[in-house]
Order: sequence, then structure tokens, then C-alpha cells
Amino acid sequence: MKFTEMLKARWHNQNTLLCVGLDPNTSRFPEELADDPDAILHFCCGIVDATADLVCAFKPQIAYFASEGAEAALKRIISYIHANHPGIPVILDAKRGDIGSTCEHYAREAFERFGADCVTLSPYMGEDTISPYLAWEEKGAFLLCRTSNKGGDDLQMLDVGGERLFEHVARLVAEKWNRTGELGLVVGATYPEELAAVRRIAPDIPLLVPGIGAQGGDIEAAVKAGMDTEGAGMVINSGRAILYASRGADWREAARKAATETRDAINAARSL
Amino acid sequence: MKFTEMLKARWHNQNTLLCVGLDPNTSRFPEELADDPDAILHFCCGIVDATADLVCAFKPQIAYFASEGAEAALKRIISYIHANHPGIPVILDAKRGDIGSTCEHYAREAFERFGADCVTLSPYMGEDTISPYLAWEEKGAFLLCRTSNKGGDDLQMLDVGGERLFEHVARLVAEKWNRTGELGLVVGATYPEELAAVRRIAPDIPLLVPGIGAQGGDIEAAVKAGMDTEGAGMVINSGRAILYASRGADWREAARKAATETRDAINAARSL
Repeated sequence: MKFTEMLKARWHNQNTLLCVGLDPNTSRFPEELADDPDAILHFCCGIVDATADLVCAFKPQIAYFASEGAEAALKRIISYIHANHPGIPVILDAKRGDIGSTCEHYAREAFERFGADCVTLSPYMGEDTISPYLAWEEKGAFLLCRTSNKGGDDLQMLDVGGERLFEHVARLVAEKWNRTGELGLVVGATYPEELAAVRRIAPDIPLLVPGIGAQGGDIEAAVKAGMDTEGAGMVINSGRAILYASRGADWREAARKAATETRDAINAARSL
Repeated sequence: MKFTEMLKARWHNQNTLLCVGLDPNTSRFPEELADDPDAILHFCCGIVDATADLVCAFKPQIAYFASEGAEAALKRIISYIHANHPGIPVILDAKRGDIGSTCEHYAREAFERFGADCVTLSPYMGEDTISPYLAWEEKGAFLLCRTSNKGGDDLQMLDVGGERLFEHVARLVAEKWNRTGELGLVVGATYPEELAAVRRIAPDIPLLVPGIGAQGGDIEAAVKAGMDTEGAGMVINSGRAILYASRGADWREAARKAATETRDAINAARSL
């Protein structure tokens, strides 16, 4: 099943645009996992089970696994999602970008080794650094476009001849690079006007939207700016605000409550 | 010892600008390693021993290890270089780029887990995605500027108000972001005129130069364009042309011969 078909099924049948970001920061883990040698695995699978019916996707951030040497846990978590919650796509947040012969290895890492359905990529090195991922025709890729951090302005807001660099990237992806129909764009929730500009350029492309929750983006403004014509089209990520809602024995319930509230706030904004 | 001091010692005391890229493609390995369960480790350490006195740095490309699940081998190879060939800096080619809280994890991956002296990074997300690496004050980072692949034109050649994007990146790094003095720029050998443009903007910054050898860049033109005022300043990478010079029993000798010829061709161009 194609990545975008999995997403659409979750958006419309499960009525949710929420993505839970799996960023396992061991220093913020629940107290009961303090002495667990498989804490990362058990924490992430606990969050997955507590929130699966509320999400359109899960997004593990590979840096958190790489700093801990926890590749084996990452692989098991993605397998766990596919086995226990079939139909939920997994987006491996890796922001890779390299020459084509190297990208083939990164694609194998994401899609074969870890079994992800989609990966995040950087556009800086151009189209031939994206195309190796398209050889996996059913797999998706979100390309960095307008990021939610302060320094995002440094390059992305530069005028490149009548439009800003992030708009140019959106146009390249929407009009030229998206040969499989499985590409999307990363656009931060912290800049709703720019989210709207990207949506005008790319009316049908899925947008991965970080920046709500701990990063402070406004849900209502982001949803209004980023929805597609079917009232969906967005994968709205929240990580820390859900993962670390409680360090007590109620951590699963607290995560579920935070995820429910976020999903509901998104859905309320969709129907305004 | 700071990364740039290690580099300068190799440039001037060992008289070499050559960097050997460790891109272990198992399908091209010597025949004698066909049944070796530690083939990646033994191949890379064999190349290291055969070429160490000829290089200013080694550059393992993490994608080749990631696709094989060979993180343990990568860690052992870098330890091996430091233990057996002290003073040779190791550049982990990873081209990472993410928000600050995530970058701290990538920095820990590169510098603490793997023990690299330097890492490659993408500038697309801006200064606050570079600064977490500068907390390791002695470690280096090369930022993508003008890459050697065809698609490098797509973004990097855009006019951003009187200069091209890659020139703007060079200026940001040289004039603003380089607070530790340990930053450098990645500029492909395939475009000597653009290498010269970067060198004019950043007269003192180390340049990591891929694209000679298998990628076809001209050594003489690249060296003339990229040298600093002391006749050095470049880390000129060659991977495949050295690693896979022979698949026979003479693979170490063939790699050494190819590396010697490349180093000598670079040095001949330096003295023209």
C-alpha cells in the first residue's frame, strides 16, 4: 500500500491529522523505567499503544536513537507498530541529503533495515539526491521546506527572484520532483502565513507540520492555513508535550489525554 | 587538540592534502574478504594502514555503515585510527541538519559515540542548527556549500540578491557562524571557478573537496582554485578510486599506489 494511501485512510476513516513524534529522551522517562535495560523500547511501545487510535502516523526521530546506540530498539519499535497497529504509516525523521550513490544506502537504511514507510529529506543538494528514494515507488518522503526553528530564516527566507527560497522548494517538489506522487513538504506551524503560501503552491501535497506543542505554534492558525480542499492534507506532529505529559505511574494515560486533546483541537479547527 | 590544528599539522608536516573516504561497499570488496563476517572492519582497517602516512584525514561515510547495520564496525574503525595513527583527524560524513534539541543528539552521536573529530552538516535550517556542535569547542564541522553532484545547481546556484546561494552560505559561515574557528565548507572539485569564488569569500577556512577520482573533477584546476595563502587549506577527498583499485590479493598495495599517485598529483599542482 502506498504511503499516501495509508495517510488518507487514517485522515478520513480515523478522522485524525495528529502524528506522535517518538523522540525518546531517556532523562525525561517515567520513573518506573529508571532501571529497565530496554527502557527506550518499552517507553516507545507504551506511547504507541496509548495513542495508536488517535494518530494518522508515528514519527520516530532517528537522532534520539543514534545518540544512545539504540538502532535495535528503533527497528523493533517500527516492527511493533506494523504488527500491532497495521495501517499506521511510520515516518523516519532523518533529514538525510547526499549524492545519489550514498542516498541509495540511506534509502536502504530507512526502508529495508528499519522498515519505515516514509523518510524526511533535505533539498539542499537537489533533485538527483531525492530520486534514489523514488525507486521505492510506494514509499514516501517529506522534504524540508519552511522549518519551525528561528534559524530557518537564514536561507529559507532569501528572495530568489520574486519568491522566497522555501516557496521555490515547494514549487520544485510540487511541479517537478514528485514523480511517484509520494512526496510531501515539511512546513512549521510557527509561521501560518508561510504555511498558507506553501499550500497555494502545492494544493494537493501532504504537509508534515512540526512546531505545535512544546515549540509554541498555534493549532487553529496552522490548520486553517494548511488544510487541503478535502479538509485534511496535514500530518501535524507533537512530540514532547505528549511523550512527557507525566513521569508518574499514569504516564500512558497522561500521554493519551494530551494526544486526545491535541487531536480534538485540530479537528475543532478543521470544522471552523 | 583542535580539529584545525590536527589538519594543519598533517598538511604542513606530512605534506599532504589527500583525504581517503571510507565508503565500504561490500559488493566491491576484495575477493579474500568474501566469507569474513567482519569484512567491513577488516577492509577499512586494511585501507587505513595502507594509506595512513599519505593522508591528512580519513572520512567515513556513515550511510554505508547504516545500510549494513554496521555501527559497531564504524566505532571500532575510528578507534583503530586514533590508536594506531594518532594525529590523523576523522571526519564523519553525515550531512546532518535538524532543530537544536535534535542536533545535540546528532553531535553526541558523532563526537561521543563514534569519537569523530569533525562532522559534515547541512546549512538549510540555519545557524541555530549548527551552534549545538560548537559546544564541542575542539571539534570541527564542514558545512555543505557547493556540492559536486548535478542537482547541486537546483538550489545552490539561485541568485539571492547579487550573489548565488552557495556564496551566501560561504559568507555566513566565514563572517558570522564560525565562532570557534573550527568550521569549514564543502565545495566540489567539479566546479573550479566556484571553488575559487568560495576561496575569495573565505580566505582562511578549510575546504573539504569531494569530486576528484570517480566523480571526474580535475585535480590541477581544483588545487589552483582552492588553496589558501599557505598553499594548503584543502581536504581533497578520494574514495572509490582508492578503495577499489584492486579486488585481488594486492588490494592493499593497489590502494596505496592509487593514494600515492593522487597525493603526488595534488602536490605537483600546489607547486605549479
